[in-house]
Amino acid sequence: MLAATALVLLMTPGLALFYGGMVRTKSVLNMLMMSFVSIALVTVVWLLAGYSLAFGDDAGGGLIGGLDHLGMAGIGVGSVHGTVPTFLFATFQLTFAIVTAALISGAVADRAKFGAWLIFVPVWALLVYVPVAHWVWGPGGWIVENLKALDFAGGLPVEITSGASGLALCLVLGPRLGFKKDAMRPHNIPMVVMGAGLLWFGWFGFNAGSALGANGLAAAAFLNTLAAGCTGLLGWLFVEQKRDGHPTTLGAASGAVAGLVAITPACGVVGLVGALVVGLGAGVLCSYAVGWKFRLNYDDSLDVVGVHLVGGIVGTVLIGLFATSSMTGGREGLLYGGGLGQLGRQALAVVVVAAYAFLVTYGIGKAIDRLIGFRADEEHEQQGLDLTVHAESAYDHGVLGHGAPLSGTPKTPKVHA
Amino acid sequence: MLAATALVLLMTPGLALFYGGMVRTKSVLNMLMMSFVSIALVTVVWLLAGYSLAFGDDAGGGLIGGLDHLGMAGIGVGSVHGTVPTFLFATFQLTFAIVTAALISGAVADRAKFGAWLIFVPVWALLVYVPVAHWVWGPGGWIVENLKALDFAGGLPVEITSGASGLALCLVLGPRLGFKKDAMRPHNIPMVVMGAGLLWFGWFGFNAGSALGANGLAAAAFLNTLAAGCTGLLGWLFVEQKRDGHPTTLGAASGAVAGLVAITPACGVVGLVGALVVGLGAGVLCSYAVGWKFRLNYDDSLDVVGVHLVGGIVGTVLIGLFATSSMTGGREGLLYGGGLGQLGRQALAVVVVAAYAFLVTYGIGKAIDRLIGFRADEEHEQQGLDLTVHAESAYDHGVLGHGAPLSGTPKTPKVHA
Amino acid sequence: MLAATALVLLMTPGLALFYGGMVRTKSVLNMLMMSFVSIALVTVVWLLAGYSLAFGDDAGGGLIGGLDHLGMAGIGVGSVHGTVPTFLFATFQLTFAIVTAALISGAVADRAKFGAWLIFVPVWALLVYVPVAHWVWGPGGWIVENLKALDFAGGLPVEITSGASGLALCLVLGPRLGFKKDAMRPHNIPMVVMGAGLLWFGWFGFNAGSALGANGLAAAAFLNTLAAGCTGLLGWLFVEQKRDGHPTTLGAASGAVAGLVAITPACGVVGLVGALVVGLGAGVLCSYAVGWKFRLNYDDSLDVVGVHLVGGIVGTVLIGLFATSSMTGGREGLLYGGGLGQLGRQALAVVVVAAYAFLVTYGIGKAIDRLIGFRADEEHEQQGLDLTVHAESAYDHGVLGHGAPLSGTPKTPKVHA
Repeated sequence: MLAATALVLLMTPGLALFYGGMVRTKSVLNMLMMSFVSIALVTVVWLLAGYSLAFGDDAGGGLIGGLDHLGMAGIGVGSVHGTVPTFLFATFQLTFAIVTAALISGAVADRAKFGAWLIFVPVWALLVYVPVAHWVWGPGGWIVENLKALDFAGGLPVEITSGASGLALCLVLGPRLGFKKDAMRPHNIPMVVMGAGLLWFGWFGFNAGSALGANGLAAAAFLNTLAAGCTGLLGWLFVEQKRDGHPTTLGAASGAVAGLVAITPACGVVGLVGALVVGLGAGVLCSYAVGWKFRLNYDDSLDVVGVHLVGGIVGTVLIGLFATSSMTGGREGLLYGGGLGQLGRQALAVVVVAAYAFLVTYGIGKAIDRLIGFRADEEHEQQGLDLTVHAESAYDHGVLGHGAPLSGTPKTPKVHA
Repeated sequence: MLAATALVLLMTPGLALFYGGMVRTKSVLNMLMMSFVSIALVTVVWLLAGYSLAFGDDAGGGLIGGLDHLGMAGIGVGSVHGTVPTFLFATFQLTFAIVTAALISGAVADRAKFGAWLIFVPVWALLVYVPVAHWVWGPGGWIVENLKALDFAGGLPVEITSGASGLALCLVLGPRLGFKKDAMRPHNIPMVVMGAGLLWFGWFGFNAGSALGANGLAAAAFLNTLAAGCTGLLGWLFVEQKRDGHPTTLGAASGAVAGLVAITPACGVVGLVGALVVGLGAGVLCSYAVGWKFRLNYDDSLDVVGVHLVGGIVGTVLIGLFATSSMTGGREGLLYGGGLGQLGRQALAVVVVAAYAFLVTYGIGKAIDRLIGFRADEEHEQQGLDLTVHAESAYDHGVLGHGAPLSGTPKTPKVHA
Repeated sequence: MLAATALVLLMTPGLALFYGGMVRTKSVLNMLMMSFVSIALVTVVWLLAGYSLAFGDDAGGGLIGGLDHLGMAGIGVGSVHGTVPTFLFATFQLTFAIVTAALISGAVADRAKFGAWLIFVPVWALLVYVPVAHWVWGPGGWIVENLKALDFAGGLPVEITSGASGLALCLVLGPRLGFKKDAMRPHNIPMVVMGAGLLWFGWFGFNAGSALGANGLAAAAFLNTLAAGCTGLLGWLFVEQKRDGHPTTLGAASGAVAGLVAITPACGVVGLVGALVVGLGAGVLCSYAVGWKFRLNYDDSLDVVGVHLVGGIVGTVLIGLFATSSMTGGREGLLYGGGLGQLGRQALAVVVVAAYAFLVTYGIGKAIDRLIGFRADEEHEQQGLDLTVHAESAYDHGVLGHGAPLSGTPKTPKVHA
């Protein structure tokens, strides 16, 4: 569990690289910063209140946890959650909250005011992530206890929540300057691939760690995670080859991630065949879904909607078909003789969580936009956020490093001084 | 074991970076893709048939496993292999198969037809990797059971098999355009170093995980793995300094990998002195072996032969000198009073495995070449495979990212849409 | 523990990237090399003598261990240290020694003679690291046994020792050419961020692994490590915003590292509030401390003093305020009713270790400087150490990789041949 928690935490730097490689040179650092400050902000909020509200005893109706553990009150070195120290359980859950917040940043790449992001992240974590986490994983959470939907490792709180929130936020901010006109190619695809590699590595902690123990279930979740990432990759490349005539590296990385997204809720409730189909379905469907933004005119810059919302829906809904009692210890999907019931429960959970995340995030975004503005100044966006907001540029190769100052480089050169 | 399996899986992205940094800018993505599709293709083949043929009950003579577990039939969440869930054991073994296939790609960098690679990998995995894995690790495998050669973590199935297969395949394809004329310098050595770092990190899972438990043997294997990587690095740099007057970064990375390759079969059967000698021997010998290709005119582009075949032979054979009963619980090498027997058994295993891998791979390569051609079009190779095959380029720094289109950049610019 | 050890080992490649990204393009590889050879050199020294002198039975006065385990004599596969195999314990401790040596290289970036570094590392490891490690962690070590100072995971042997040694060595070498005149901007900030991400990931092994078991204490240390890194990051950014008007990516990475440095000694002895304060204090203080070098004219190039010495002092001293008996099982800091005693013991330990490390390192540095010179030739420094010492350059994008030779590229182009 310690190792799994460290792995999940590595996902956020992995995500930073995955996203950072996809943007243009002028906003790389801003993209990395959005992920890194999410680590810090969500951690502080989680320790102060998030953990208590998500995992404290239910305060009523399965909607939210209580206030008993504000500031981690009442939890000590000897506390345990099942067989796991409570501090470890709380940290493991925290790492999920972090990466979910960071995921949203991809939808608003290159144009969010940094100060607005610093306000958005803690507010969003408390108002969106924490309630949904309670519904799914908290003691008495209504989605699992009353609705009896299945979600092993976070299709609802992580994937669908980040995807629907990303959609809301990119609508609040509007498209990048030059959207649909300029090329906006990724500036460094090897960085994207490296990020995808670290994400995949961390995802094993995410999914297998959710078994909360080193057992057969964790092993099956692990193998399902690998299998779905693979068929996601193959599915995406197959569509690209057929549609565009070229299997791309960006497609391989995106397809693997799509498969991993989709298997997240399902990895501990479906068998191997289910995992292969879930991954393949996500790879194929998401490879189309990332094109919707051009037709529907929302600038989900790095495809949080196309990959996480769509992939999350695919995985959560397909549980209704592929859940098998050999994994769940009882519940079965349509294809394993369980009828339509589980499918309906999964679909309802998807709709409620997506709607809740979308609406509340839209409200938070609009409120911040009214208060201080959420969109960066046009001039900043044009010149790039790295120079204008962070007074840095990502790369400086100078004249073999002698640093003949280029126009457009930071005015106050210093090595963090 | 869960952690070890995740570590070994990280080796393939690590290898992708190691190789990707070594090639020229025009084929980086193609190199990364060859590793990433190996993950997907080998996984699918392994689950369908590879696991059963390698680790199913012996079908006769210790040559191949049975068909009982095709499609992972008969294996469930509760199945165990020793004390480890069978799903986990199968996944751990799968990660070895993946990285072995990916290793071969270094021998044919910059010039393989991508479609041909997609066919080669699954066929090769079934016809070459799977049988050798059965011989060494499968129930009743003849190399371990009858010949009684020692191979702790995969000198034969991983290192020698990939190296001999790389030699065969680069002979099938012939040298790169400009081989021995153009410089062909690595385009990004920090990427190579980062890849080597991730490889080393993952190798601990590879070697220590092969003890299948967190015990004293795993600890000794871990320390031996560190020690041999270190002396490999020092040995290579020493030769470079003496021979060329410069210790290079590429040499440090290559030397560490050479030491790690050589200790792979030996890490759980030799003592610390043995590990230091094995690593040093590999570092020194491989630093010469990578020059053979220029004299003998085979273009093993990224030195799969010079490092993996030669390093694998060094480690596997030196077991015959350094095996100690304190590690093996009985078998001893020449220097520990065991006579010449073990040395002979090791040498015979090396010869048989290297010959088998070379010949079958050569046959597969020739067959694919005849069917669809294995070598990329000359024009594609000249322009680079990234643009011509994948319609991408690895880096695009534009004019601070504004993307004034360069001639030679992708015609259909889009962020995976 | 196996996983923790692998994580700590990954810190050195992580550090190599963290440092490598901060230097100018012309000395990247040299920077990476200084870290990688530290792995190899410290490992060899540790196995020969370091482990015995640090962790062998005390040879008298708690000052140094005995010679019983020279060459790891008397330690076998079955040996245990508590419940951990001795080989594993020795390797875990070795990884700390490695990263401490590598840390020093940041203080002398871009200008150290490579041959001198190869001599410095093993001598320094034996004369500086090994005694301090014995004082703090060795059986009968005087700092813990007699002085009764607290240091959970290495504030004294790792952070303060590396920081004080870095200060000594940069005084021996003098400032870089152009110090305080040229910009000397980091050449690749994404590389710095990636290095910081890997460092953070590895630090969990470092700190939580120091509990030597998967228990509640390890969990608390893990959470404290995350929390302090976060407040370190926020504290540094807050100062930057106030002081310079820009929160920088380099500041975020540096702040996280400063928080991690400071929590290293404290992670297993303070509560969560203590961890948040320790991290915040380090982030704020170190963000000022990195500017001292410009006022006091010592060229601590990559801020080993400003981050590791100052951060290490912050964390070690604050234990005297925040130690809580719920973690220590007895000892308490000033704020938890323990009086001034622990604070004094912490301060004394800091002074003695910092003075010892500074003086002995200064002596070693001067001795090497007299023997063979420690400073690179001026011409080498001007042109960059990569080309002149290692005959390589970090990046070569050529004309799409065709490699039209630039002036200033290596004369003997070859792929490690």
